[in-house]
Amino acid sequence: MLGKMLENVRNDHPLIHNITNYVTVNDCANILLACGASPIMADDIDEVEEITSICNGLCINIGTLNNRTIRSMFAAGKRANELDHPVILDPVGAGASALRTDTSLQLLDEVKLSVIRGNISEIRTLASGSGTTKGVDADVADKVTEENLDDVASFAKAFSKKTGAVVVITGAIDIAADESRAYCIRNGHPMMSSITGTGCQLSAMTAAFVSANTGHPLEAAAAAVAAMGYAGETAYARLAGPDGNSTYRNYIIDAIFNMTPKMLEEGAKYEVR
Amino acid sequence: MLGKMLENVRNDHPLIHNITNYVTVNDCANILLACGASPIMADDIDEVEEITSICNGLCINIGTLNNRTIRSMFAAGKRANELDHPVILDPVGAGASALRTDTSLQLLDEVKLSVIRGNISEIRTLASGSGTTKGVDADVADKVTEENLDDVASFAKAFSKKTGAVVVITGAIDIAADESRAYCIRNGHPMMSSITGTGCQLSAMTAAFVSANTGHPLEAAAAAVAAMGYAGETAYARLAGPDGNSTYRNYIIDAIFNMTPKMLEEGAKYEVR
Amino acid sequence: MLGKMLENVRNDHPLIHNITNYVTVNDCANILLACGASPIMADDIDEVEEITSICNGLCINIGTLNNRTIRSMFAAGKRANELDHPVILDPVGAGASALRTDTSLQLLDEVKLSVIRGNISEIRTLASGSGTTKGVDADVADKVTEENLDDVASFAKAFSKKTGAVVVITGAIDIAADESRAYCIRNGHPMMSSITGTGCQLSAMTAAFVSANTGHPLEAAAAAVAAMGYAGETAYARLAGPDGNSTYRNYIIDAIFNMTPKMLEEGAKYEVR
Repeated sequence: MLGKMLENVRNDHPLIHNITNYVTVNDCANILLACGASPIMADDIDEVEEITSICNGLCINIGTLNNRTIRSMFAAGKRANELDHPVILDPVGAGASALRTDTSLQLLDEVKLSVIRGNISEIRTLASGSGTTKGVDADVADKVTEENLDDVASFAKAFSKKTGAVVVITGAIDIAADESRAYCIRNGHPMMSSITGTGCQLSAMTAAFVSANTGHPLEAAAAAVAAMGYAGETAYARLAGPDGNSTYRNYIIDAIFNMTPKMLEEGAKYEVR
Repeated sequence: MLGKMLENVRNDHPLIHNITNYVTVNDCANILLACGASPIMADDIDEVEEITSICNGLCINIGTLNNRTIRSMFAAGKRANELDHPVILDPVGAGASALRTDTSLQLLDEVKLSVIRGNISEIRTLASGSGTTKGVDADVADKVTEENLDDVASFAKAFSKKTGAVVVITGAIDIAADESRAYCIRNGHPMMSSITGTGCQLSAMTAAFVSANTGHPLEAAAAAVAAMGYAGETAYARLAGPDGNSTYRNYIIDAIFNMTPKMLEEGAKYEVR
Repeated sequence: MLGKMLENVRNDHPLIHNITNYVTVNDCANILLACGASPIMADDIDEVEEITSICNGLCINIGTLNNRTIRSMFAAGKRANELDHPVILDPVGAGASALRTDTSLQLLDEVKLSVIRGNISEIRTLASGSGTTKGVDADVADKVTEENLDDVASFAKAFSKKTGAVVVITGAIDIAADESRAYCIRNGHPMMSSITGTGCQLSAMTAAFVSANTGHPLEAAAAAVAAMGYAGETAYARLAGPDGNSTYRNYIIDAIFNMTPKMLEEGAKYEVR
C-alpha cells in the first residue's frame, strides 16, 4: 500500500510549489527530484498565486519566517485551496516566537490544510491555540515513547478532527493520523537529528506524495514518513569510518532517489492504531 | 579552442557578482570556485553598484525573484554596462509568471546582456516578447532534437541578432549562438535534470568564462556549456551502486574542479552550424 | 586545553542563533550540528529578540547584508548583550562596500562583541574605522606570513584592546588574540579556499565554542579555529583521485562530526605569543 503511494509519485511527477526557508531549501529541491517530483520555489506576493496555479501542491514552511513572505503564504494557500491542491504546513519553530506561533495559527484558520507536519512541541503549540483560540487537549508528553504512544496517537486524531488535516508528528516514533486512524511508524535513525532539514525535506516530500495520491492523504503522508525514515536507515548502513553528518545528508537523498516502491513496501515498519 | 577558454578562467580568476536565487546559490558559489573564478553574492540596492564595480562580471538569475532585489538587478546591470563588464541573464521560470516574464523583458530592454541562458521554453518566452514588444519568431518546438536542430539554431541566431547577446539554449542538445554561428553541443547526461541547479551553475560559470575571455563571448559561452555537460558525463561515470542525485551533484562540481583545459578540449562534442 | 573546549560543546549542546547569509547557511547549520551544537536561523525584526533569548549565543554574519535584516542584527545583538550571551561578528566583505563597512562599524559601536572573525583585509577595515571613528593602526600587510606574524599579532591585540572582543584573523596562519595574548595557529590546508563558506562555518562554530566555555572566550575561539583547520587537514587526507572541492566541503563537516577532544588536543598546532 505505501509502496503504491511512491509509485504514483514516480509516475505522476507532481510539481510542488515551496514557500520555504533559505536554510534547507536546496535539500528540499533535491529530495523532491529524488522521489520523482519537481520543485518550484517562489515567494513573492506578486507571483505566488500564478505559480501555485501551475503546480500540483503547495508546501509552506516557516523555517525562516519573515514579513516579506507571510502575505505570500496566505495568498498562495488560498489560491491552492480554490484549485483543490493539497497544502502542507511545516510550522518550524512554532512556540519559539510569537511571530511563528501566530502565523501558524492564522494559517490554520484561513487556509485549509491537507497535512500539518512538525515535532511534538510544534504540534502541541498549534493544538493549544492562542489566547483567543480554544485548542484541543495538548497535555501530552515532550517525547513520543512506547509508553505514551496511545496518548499521542489520540491527541493527533483529535487535532486532525479539529483541523481536517492529516497530522504528522515526527520523532523517535512517527505518527500520521486522521481523525480515526493513526499510523505509528518505526523507521528512521537517531543520526537523522544530526543533520539540518530532514523535517523540512519530509514536509516537501509529503506534499509530493499527497499531490500524487488524490483521495488518500493519510496513506500518502504515512508513505512519505516511512520513505524518509527508511532512507535514514539505508543511508546509515552505507556510512563508513570517516563519514559524518554531511555525507549522511547526501546519502539520505541518494536513498530516496534509489528507493523503489517494492523497497518501501518491504522496508516500512508501522502499525495502525 | 574551448580548452583555452577554461585555461583563461584558471589564469585570470575572475570575480563574479551574482544576484541570484537562494535555492542553488551555494552550488553556484562552489562551481565558480571549481572553475577557477571567485564568487560574490550581493543583492541589496545600497551596495550592488559598488560590489559589481570591483568584480569582472555579473550574473543575474531570477530563480527566486522578489521585489526587494529587482531594483538591484537593474542598478547592478547598468553599472556593469558602464564598466563594460559582461552581464549574463538566467531568466529562470520566464513564462511561469508575469513577474518573471516582465522583469526579464525589461532587463532585456534596459541592460545590455552578453549572454542569455535558459531552456527552450524560457528563451521562447523572451523572444516572443510581451504585448507591447514585438518579438522574433518563437514558433519553435518544446524540445531540441536532431530533427529540429537547424530550426532552433536559426531561432537562436535571430534572437541573438535582435538582442546583441549570445543566446544559450540548454536541453538534450545545447546551443550557443551569436547572430551568425551556432555551436551545437552534445555533452551532458539525462541525470543532470535530477538535480536542482545545473542550469544556474552553468549560468554562473558562463559569467566567469565570458569575463576571462574578452572579445570571445560565443566561444567562452560554448566552452562553459561544454564544460558543464562534460562534467555531467564524467560525474555520471563515477557513480556506483547506491549513489543518487545528491552524490551526483557533488561529483559534477568535483569534475569541474579537476577538469583541465586539455580534458575539455578533448571531451567537448560539438559542431558549428 | 583546546580539546576541553570542544568537549564542553559536545556536553552542553549550545543553541546558536544565526543571522547570516543565504549562501553558506546550510553548511553553517550542519557544522554546528557536527560539533555538538544546535542551530536556529531567524532574521525577522519581529522575532529575533525572542529567538535570541532562548539561545545561548548569537552569530551575526553580513555575507548577504540587506536592509531587511540590518535592524534585526542590532536588535538581536542588544538583546543578547542584555542576557550576557556571547555575540560573534563575521564582517564578510567589510571594505568591499560602504554598506558592509558602515554596518560593521556601527555594530562594533552599539553591540558588545565577544569575538570578531574575518580575514586580514576585513579586520583592517574595521580597525581603520570610518571617517569619524579613529581606528587603531591598521598599517599591516595583506597576508599573514612568518615574517610579519609578530606585527599582525600586535595589531590583533591592539584591536582587541580597543573593542574588548577576541579578534580572530584567518589566513595561511590564523591568529586569535585578546589584548595580551595571541594564539598563532598553523592548522588548515590551502584547498580550504576552494570552497565557499569555511570562514562562515568557523564563525558559527566559534559562537558555539564561546557559548559553551563561559569565561574563556580566547581559548574557545582558538579551539574553534584549530578544529576548523584540523578538519581541513584530515578532510584533505581523505580525498582521492576524482574528488574535488564539493566532496572536500562534505569531508570537512564530516571531520568536525568525528573529531574527539583528544584528536583536537593532539592535532592542534599553535603557539601563544
